[in-house]
Amino acid sequence: MTSSIQNIETKLFEVPLPEVLSDAKHGDHFYFQLVTCTITLDDGSQGTGYTYTGGKGGHAIRAMIQHDLAPALLGKDGTNIEGIYDFMEWHIHYVGRGGIASFALSAIDIALWDIKAKKAGQPLWKLAGGAKSSCLAYRGGIDLMFPLEKLLASIQGYLDEGFTAVKIKIGKENLAEDLERIRAVRDLIGPDITFMVDANYSMSVEKAIDAARAFAPYDIFWFEEPIIPDDYKGFARIADATSIPLAMGENLHTIHEFGYALDQAELSFVQPDASNCGGITGWLRVAELSRQHGIPVCSHGMQELHVSLVSAQPNAGWLEVHSFPIDQYTTRPLVLENHRAVAPEAPGIGVTFDWKKLDPYLITI
Amino acid sequence: MTSSIQNIETKLFEVPLPEVLSDAKHGDHFYFQLVTCTITLDDGSQGTGYTYTGGKGGHAIRAMIQHDLAPALLGKDGTNIEGIYDFMEWHIHYVGRGGIASFALSAIDIALWDIKAKKAGQPLWKLAGGAKSSCLAYRGGIDLMFPLEKLLASIQGYLDEGFTAVKIKIGKENLAEDLERIRAVRDLIGPDITFMVDANYSMSVEKAIDAARAFAPYDIFWFEEPIIPDDYKGFARIADATSIPLAMGENLHTIHEFGYALDQAELSFVQPDASNCGGITGWLRVAELSRQHGIPVCSHGMQELHVSLVSAQPNAGWLEVHSFPIDQYTTRPLVLENHRAVAPEAPGIGVTFDWKKLDPYLITI
Ligand SMILES: [Mg+2]
Ligand SMILES: [Mg+2]
Repeated sequence: MTSSIQNIETKLFEVPLPEVLSDAKHGDHFYFQLVTCTITLDDGSQGTGYTYTGGKGGHAIRAMIQHDLAPALLGKDGTNIEGIYDFMEWHIHYVGRGGIASFALSAIDIALWDIKAKKAGQPLWKLAGGAKSSCLAYRGGIDLMFPLEKLLASIQGYLDEGFTAVKIKIGKENLAEDLERIRAVRDLIGPDITFMVDANYSMSVEKAIDAARAFAPYDIFWFEEPIIPDDYKGFARIADATSIPLAMGENLHTIHEFGYALDQAELSFVQPDASNCGGITGWLRVAELSRQHGIPVCSHGMQELHVSLVSAQPNAGWLEVHSFPIDQYTTRPLVLENHRAVAPEAPGIGVTFDWKKLDPYLITI
Repeated sequence: MTSSIQNIETKLFEVPLPEVLSDAKHGDHFYFQLVTCTITLDDGSQGTGYTYTGGKGGHAIRAMIQHDLAPALLGKDGTNIEGIYDFMEWHIHYVGRGGIASFALSAIDIALWDIKAKKAGQPLWKLAGGAKSSCLAYRGGIDLMFPLEKLLASIQGYLDEGFTAVKIKIGKENLAEDLERIRAVRDLIGPDITFMVDANYSMSVEKAIDAARAFAPYDIFWFEEPIIPDDYKGFARIADATSIPLAMGENLHTIHEFGYALDQAELSFVQPDASNCGGITGWLRVAELSRQHGIPVCSHGMQELHVSLVSAQPNAGWLEVHSFPIDQYTTRPLVLENHRAVAPEAPGIGVTFDWKKLDPYLITI
């Protein structure tokens, strides 16, 4: 049954973080931006999608939905998700192919999936592959500027919450500083906890190779974004020169970029983010590509949504539980059971915003 | 002498086109969007930069300048263009790496170059390389939907204006239709006029190879964007299978994308657009890269600015004189002399908007 898009409402929120969080390349985060997009079809069905940023671009995303996408989508069949996805890609192609357009398109696509899953009376994990309803998860901190003591307290907090895998930021001025932190964290967590590091592309290939070799005694599960995401062959040089598994994906926005990365970067894990790679449609296309390349698909950010997507894949990797607590502003914050993240069972994408809680942070509709 | 940025004013215009213009992938254009950005330094110096779109994305570009870039740039040294360029790239990296961010950043960069050139008392062509003050130029039409008779009249008009090179849109449903138009245009212009075609990435590699072979009798100077810009190796397959020179660049936004294209796509011409590849700084970086690869640097759109940039390069290719008549809203519309486009000699970028003429089309400040 087709049903046409009757209304698209977009809201921009700036949600303050409990404390200022810093990484090696994006500087300080005081708040995160949340752009929600609620779509109503003419049969009365309704779904909400969203995207988020580290504090910049939210106004542009909202402007693109409001001025370029929404007017063009009204009246189109909201149940034809693939068709709308392709239409949007071409409609804003000249100013798109990544960047803001990818975030805008994602919010709309996720809203349409919410409608689709509600209409089907199914939870997202079933519609998105159905392999499992839970997945491995790790807690990642934006903790580069935490003094060592605070870093360790924060890691201990993750363990206390039930996580058996943790990730820290690296990319300090001197490699010795990174090493000191890595050593201290490994000492704290012991040999059985999975431990990843993330340099937010702050290194050169040479520095990353030196770093990867120095990390060897500490059993690092993956080295995330050692260098800029654009340098696929640079990733391969690091992989060839060391034995460390490499991961990236949060900064890749188009299926073409993921194709190049998977063909050339010798990744061990890929980490698409449905908020910036084309929503659920885009994320599932990357997941399919990751299967063709025989590597596990992980995620970046918005754990409350990705828990369903990652769980559903036969080649599920690790869910990132990110420091932007979007899930705290929903009616079902992320659930951990036996150290695994559990997908919601309610029909829809399983992300229902607590608008009352978000309301104080509304910037503009 | 350093001087800090005191004010950044952004305006969005939607300027109607004299008639609806269509190509193979962007559909109908009713107007173009112009985003201007006027920067004032604290020594009172002032410059104006700009970017443009085919009708979508203007609000998002303006929002990004206003909310993400301008606040972060106030107080920074406006004479340190490279420093500001790099700052902007990292500042909006998470929502950038192409797309809207590239357009926003371009407008600011061009404004800073305007200030720089005015302070130096030099025209842009001298500061941007200084090789020459004029360049080869061709007139490109957005004429895919023009009936044949109208297409020919339009081409005749270009010849009457003094152009000795013309480009038409192709990418009709059937190759036979494209061929009929190409044959008719070549018949009209005779053997001595340079003739390019532009498919706006509407073809598959296979169709493009068939097309290129069929074009052989008509002495096509270049085949522009036969396929999607992301498929660098697809371009190379076309180049290997045929003898037609290939051109692209208007849809590449980062130096990394240009690097991949120049390394892998076997282009004969590269066509960066300063409005969407990082302004004058970004365009000059692509020009440098094109020299390293031994191919001529051309341009896309905004002829009133690119005339200075193309003329200035030792490996100057062809200036596109585009159907979006931005130059008609400046105090010096493009000048042709002896069939060559002539760069302005006034200090600055040589693009001074006629605000009175633009005023009726102001959407928002
Ligand atoms: Mg990361
Ligand atoms: Mg073109």
